[in-house]
Amino acid sequence: MTEIEIGRGKRGRRAWAFDDIAIVPSRRTRDPRDVNTDWSIDAYGFKLPVLAAPMDSVVSPDTAIQIGQLGGLGVLDLEGLWTRYEDPTAQLAQIAKASPLEATALLQKLYAEPIKAELIRDRIAQVRAAGVTVAGALSPQRTAEFAETVIKSGVDLFVIRGTTVSAEHVSKSAEPLNLKEFIYKLDVPVIVGGAATYTAALHLMRTGAAGVLVGFGGGAASTTRKVLGIHAPMATAVADVAGARRDYMDESGGRYVHVIADGGLGTSGDIVKAISCGADAVMLGSVLAAAKEAPGQGWHWGAEAYHQDLPRGLKVEIGTKASLEQILLGSAADASGTTNLIGALKRAMATTGYSDLKEFQRVEVVAAPYQIS
Amino acid sequence: MTEIEIGRGKRGRRAWAFDDIAIVPSRRTRDPRDVNTDWSIDAYGFKLPVLAAPMDSVVSPDTAIQIGQLGGLGVLDLEGLWTRYEDPTAQLAQIAKASPLEATALLQKLYAEPIKAELIRDRIAQVRAAGVTVAGALSPQRTAEFAETVIKSGVDLFVIRGTTVSAEHVSKSAEPLNLKEFIYKLDVPVIVGGAATYTAALHLMRTGAAGVLVGFGGGAASTTRKVLGIHAPMATAVADVAGARRDYMDESGGRYVHVIADGGLGTSGDIVKAISCGADAVMLGSVLAAAKEAPGQGWHWGAEAYHQDLPRGLKVEIGTKASLEQILLGSAADASGTTNLIGALKRAMATTGYSDLKEFQRVEVVAAPYQIS
Amino acid sequence: MTEIEIGRGKRGRRAWAFDDIAIVPSRRTRDPRDVNTDWSIDAYGFKLPVLAAPMDSVVSPDTAIQIGQLGGLGVLDLEGLWTRYEDPTAQLAQIAKASPLEATALLQKLYAEPIKAELIRDRIAQVRAAGVTVAGALSPQRTAEFAETVIKSGVDLFVIRGTTVSAEHVSKSAEPLNLKEFIYKLDVPVIVGGAATYTAALHLMRTGAAGVLVGFGGGAASTTRKVLGIHAPMATAVADVAGARRDYMDESGGRYVHVIADGGLGTSGDIVKAISCGADAVMLGSVLAAAKEAPGQGWHWGAEAYHQDLPRGLKVEIGTKASLEQILLGSAADASGTTNLIGALKRAMATTGYSDLKEFQRVEVVAAPYQIS
Amino acid sequence: MTEIEIGRGKRGRRAWAFDDIAIVPSRRTRDPRDVNTDWSIDAYGFKLPVLAAPMDSVVSPDTAIQIGQLGGLGVLDLEGLWTRYEDPTAQLAQIAKASPLEATALLQKLYAEPIKAELIRDRIAQVRAAGVTVAGALSPQRTAEFAETVIKSGVDLFVIRGTTVSAEHVSKSAEPLNLKEFIYKLDVPVIVGGAATYTAALHLMRTGAAGVLVGFGGGAASTTRKVLGIHAPMATAVADVAGARRDYMDESGGRYVHVIADGGLGTSGDIVKAISCGADAVMLGSVLAAAKEAPGQGWHWGAEAYHQDLPRGLKVEIGTKASLEQILLGSAADASGTTNLIGALKRAMATTGYSDLKEFQRVEVVAAPYQIS
Repeated sequence: MTEIEIGRGKRGRRAWAFDDIAIVPSRRTRDPRDVNTDWSIDAYGFKLPVLAAPMDSVVSPDTAIQIGQLGGLGVLDLEGLWTRYEDPTAQLAQIAKASPLEATALLQKLYAEPIKAELIRDRIAQVRAAGVTVAGALSPQRTAEFAETVIKSGVDLFVIRGTTVSAEHVSKSAEPLNLKEFIYKLDVPVIVGGAATYTAALHLMRTGAAGVLVGFGGGAASTTRKVLGIHAPMATAVADVAGARRDYMDESGGRYVHVIADGGLGTSGDIVKAISCGADAVMLGSVLAAAKEAPGQGWHWGAEAYHQDLPRGLKVEIGTKASLEQILLGSAADASGTTNLIGALKRAMATTGYSDLKEFQRVEVVAAPYQIS
Repeated sequence: MTEIEIGRGKRGRRAWAFDDIAIVPSRRTRDPRDVNTDWSIDAYGFKLPVLAAPMDSVVSPDTAIQIGQLGGLGVLDLEGLWTRYEDPTAQLAQIAKASPLEATALLQKLYAEPIKAELIRDRIAQVRAAGVTVAGALSPQRTAEFAETVIKSGVDLFVIRGTTVSAEHVSKSAEPLNLKEFIYKLDVPVIVGGAATYTAALHLMRTGAAGVLVGFGGGAASTTRKVLGIHAPMATAVADVAGARRDYMDESGGRYVHVIADGGLGTSGDIVKAISCGADAVMLGSVLAAAKEAPGQGWHWGAEAYHQDLPRGLKVEIGTKASLEQILLGSAADASGTTNLIGALKRAMATTGYSDLKEFQRVEVVAAPYQIS
Repeated sequence: MTEIEIGRGKRGRRAWAFDDIAIVPSRRTRDPRDVNTDWSIDAYGFKLPVLAAPMDSVVSPDTAIQIGQLGGLGVLDLEGLWTRYEDPTAQLAQIAKASPLEATALLQKLYAEPIKAELIRDRIAQVRAAGVTVAGALSPQRTAEFAETVIKSGVDLFVIRGTTVSAEHVSKSAEPLNLKEFIYKLDVPVIVGGAATYTAALHLMRTGAAGVLVGFGGGAASTTRKVLGIHAPMATAVADVAGARRDYMDESGGRYVHVIADGGLGTSGDIVKAISCGADAVMLGSVLAAAKEAPGQGWHWGAEAYHQDLPRGLKVEIGTKASLEQILLGSAADASGTTNLIGALKRAMATTGYSDLKEFQRVEVVAAPYQIS
Repeated sequence: MTEIEIGRGKRGRRAWAFDDIAIVPSRRTRDPRDVNTDWSIDAYGFKLPVLAAPMDSVVSPDTAIQIGQLGGLGVLDLEGLWTRYEDPTAQLAQIAKASPLEATALLQKLYAEPIKAELIRDRIAQVRAAGVTVAGALSPQRTAEFAETVIKSGVDLFVIRGTTVSAEHVSKSAEPLNLKEFIYKLDVPVIVGGAATYTAALHLMRTGAAGVLVGFGGGAASTTRKVLGIHAPMATAVADVAGARRDYMDESGGRYVHVIADGGLGTSGDIVKAISCGADAVMLGSVLAAAKEAPGQGWHWGAEAYHQDLPRGLKVEIGTKASLEQILLGSAADASGTTNLIGALKRAMATTGYSDLKEFQRVEVVAAPYQIS
């Protein structure tokens, strides 16, 4: 552990971002056609190690279905506009048109509308009817309130996602969610996060979670570092949580908890690096918000952006780049690393000699911060 | 201690700025409503660990009162315009209107007006009458001349603040202030600084000071590094002085000297980091100069800016952002980390599992310089 | 080896780019007129340690001849426009005129035209007729198909160049090139790459190659790091491969494999640094694409730019700077380090006291990242 | 010594620039009026540790006199326009007016005019007549040719200055200057450089030089790093040469060779840092070229800019800031660190508790790269 003395009264660790590292080929190369990117969690298998982030700019019931059909997993945000409004088309259009100055207040207003249990049921049913794996996300704060509705509606995977989610939430004024108990009682596998350190992740693993989200999400649109001083450089965060997975596997007698990088993934190169640091899959936000089908219509925002008294995210312009299929499977529209994400991942694996994702977690990396030009 | 060889004839330490570090959540989170930010120095308690810097762009008698009523401490600059002019309204307006090219000369001219003892009395009396804690600041150079006036006027806390203040000032031509003797004789507690190293702070603590200001103040508006080559990256400075506090507590048999970060605090994230490195409280300049009520009217400057033959600061545009109350207590106006400072601090503490400021000094930090994008 | 912990589950090495280092003079200086830059590989001697990269923006049959006459080696791209089109003048003009948005698609279209064996013969014959050393390059994918044609046409040096070339390429669907067997059977010496690590290079050396290309080529025009996450900072890559050369020389009982830096060489200072890290020669792309005689007409692109489903390079504007002779041999047109490359190399060698290239590989270097100004 | 592995075949040292470091106050402060900046070399004493660089944009006979009268030393460039032209007024005006594109060629043309021995005599006589200390500089290449003229004309200090000057220059075609012999025979003390490493400087000290110039000069206007790959970060270079001074003093039984920083000194803060790393004095270029009296008329260039076949410097715009007196002695015109250089130095010394230059070389420094904002 590279510990640093910040000053006489404080020590800290050196942490690395995806931009700080790169992968390097070695003595063997491979045919990209021989590479596979299959990934499975619990009973559910996927051709692509990609989860679409439960954000209103990324996942609508329609895109959830489409992503499922392409081989990934679209996670429904069960606290988003689709469970607050019968038809959120007008609200999405309003957000797309709002100027940067108005955006925060507008988002706060639109998301003040209560969540309706029947809309949760309807949205889940719609995705389920399409025959793809169904996943829905709640924040820890609302999990107790809506979990039963969600389960009864028939999700395959239950996602509990917040900026920071811990195994032990302490509150004097509200009965907090007991994650361990909750997961134990539940029939469906749970993916939970964000967490960004070895210790935090290890405790989440001990709750019985099937997967852990690494990072604090909403990279492109987040100002958490400026507002809260909280930041987890992703290369280090993923590698730390992968270390926790290894140690927990030992301690639990073989339970493998999936590590899912969630945040800071702006290009196919970042996805490659996430897996090289130990991620089993990635949760994508902004790169999928750039799809023609994306509900955000060229804009991207997360739950931090509409926090009622401490917004710490922005509505950011992403533009519209290509179809979901082209973004995920190609062919690439240009050389910017934002289309044909899986083609790029396969080529990176082939160039460094690996044929499956699990092996590829062992690829050699160098620490080499970007040059300023 | 991370010592570095600059070259064969010189060694130095690696030092870190707030921008170089971030805090990280761990296994426990907490309800922000259960967090308290109480802080007290000597007999004086505060709801907020915030001192407003004694600068004419930040603290007028009116804002001192208002900050006190909000739960912080506004420190009067007893060498500023309010003790030089009966009514400085015209002078403040002149400064606000001055172009960057004229500003240095104008400031030098306006601050050449002598300080009047009776105005010191009046300003202190005005704040005292409002029923809040009263603090006034002098530079070490003027302390001997005006200390008696200040004490008789009835301050609760006496602040001696300069760019660099040492326990031992040597001069052949003027009788320097003997800090230790001065503080010993004084009835009111003294806060003194800036200091930025373990040794400098330890010696200030030995003079009997109740608090030490860490840093050289006036971050946003200062060019001290360019002009004098002097610079103290704040994360290291605060952690070093916190180390001195611990060692002095041992050596003195338990006297706890308060560590107050003063400089480089431009966002709520910086405040969070200052406390994470060991600060008990923060002294704020530019972020409060952006208040609607601030006397600077959207501009900010420090004493360095009107030095007669070696100005090493600028009048900088800060703009007008929100009311003092909204800046300190929210709700936030946007996601930039410059409003709802205390809300952000409480959330950062809650997210990392801490419920009071003293415990929060132990939060885990990482060294992770900002990426260039 | 400076190993770094990226996180608990991952370690990596710190790697350095040319921009991160500089060379330093020591106690002796030398007359630049006494310096020589002779270099030879196998039976072929050159006055300049310079190979022109097999790219259509750099090497035409005409410039290959001219570079040979100036003392370097122009490597023909045997999969470029000159072996696809009888006369590629129109195609080159089209590329020069294409807007950035159209460029990728146009390149993909023009390079879809099949390669013709007879054009390979003609181009090689044309260069051979001029009496200079003849070198031609194929990618590993096409080597089996065209190698016989190339050899029969009479090349002196055979270059196998891809983004990443390994000694062991694995494929289920295509019979991969067995490099070792191929080189063993061949009568002409082979230069092969890119490779960027000690291990990859060592295995390439064991195939019997006469030279190894270090790096992944096409620096200026490549987005490989963004798309694939693959990146090899060149100072470290060259020094690592030079380490492999030394170890292989020992293991093979004295065979000296030439190390040729290929990528990241934008100025004469970069060329100097490549040799200081252990390169015997350099392969130049963008700096030669700026020649008046260059076929790219002020533009530069590599094979990555026209990849059919995963382009990871761009057509970049280079401009037209000076004649090939002035770029290589001077006098310099300005102080930007892009003309009189060899004059600059000689002066750097003289200033640090060295008189030949092999000795100069021992020059002292410092790690000193560029300042941001 | 902080050695770094660049790669398996190469090691290097980490080196630091002035921008990478800062000085820090400690437990004592001092009255700036008690600080003195006296400096002497051989029999010559100066009130200011400042030499004006022998460059046509900085030193004319008139400014040499004026700098001498202000307490510094103006070094005449005996290979500049004043020794090539009877009256260079027209040539200086031409240079000031030349566009960036024409500048290199114009400089090459104007400096092709031969140097005249009688002009060397006249310029030296003019300065001598004013009663100030007289110093003149030649390059090593021209020293043999003109040294006798220079000595007979009556200089007090002889400066031999080139980009890199070594104790041992090797040439087959020209008889190189034997520095040791040359200095031994000379009656006047010699200052020689640039050198930037311990070894290079130690050997220069052994030639009998009274002072060593550290660095390669012409910082602001130089592209040596881009063209030659040569670069010496100044904080490390000065500290290394100061280490050589200490070791040579031991080896020589007490001879103290003066260390003069020459390059990278753009602000008063840089001057402060140079002395903090061990320099006895500084040679200034661009900051003095900004004087109203400077012959460059707002422009600055060095000898590298008119090299006949490998120019590696530019004519850069500096602007006209203040009088020579105000630049050196104040009061400061603004807060940018480019006027009142000595006032800033004195204040930095006072703030850190030092009263003379020699002691100030021991001031504490931190390594703290500038933040990007």
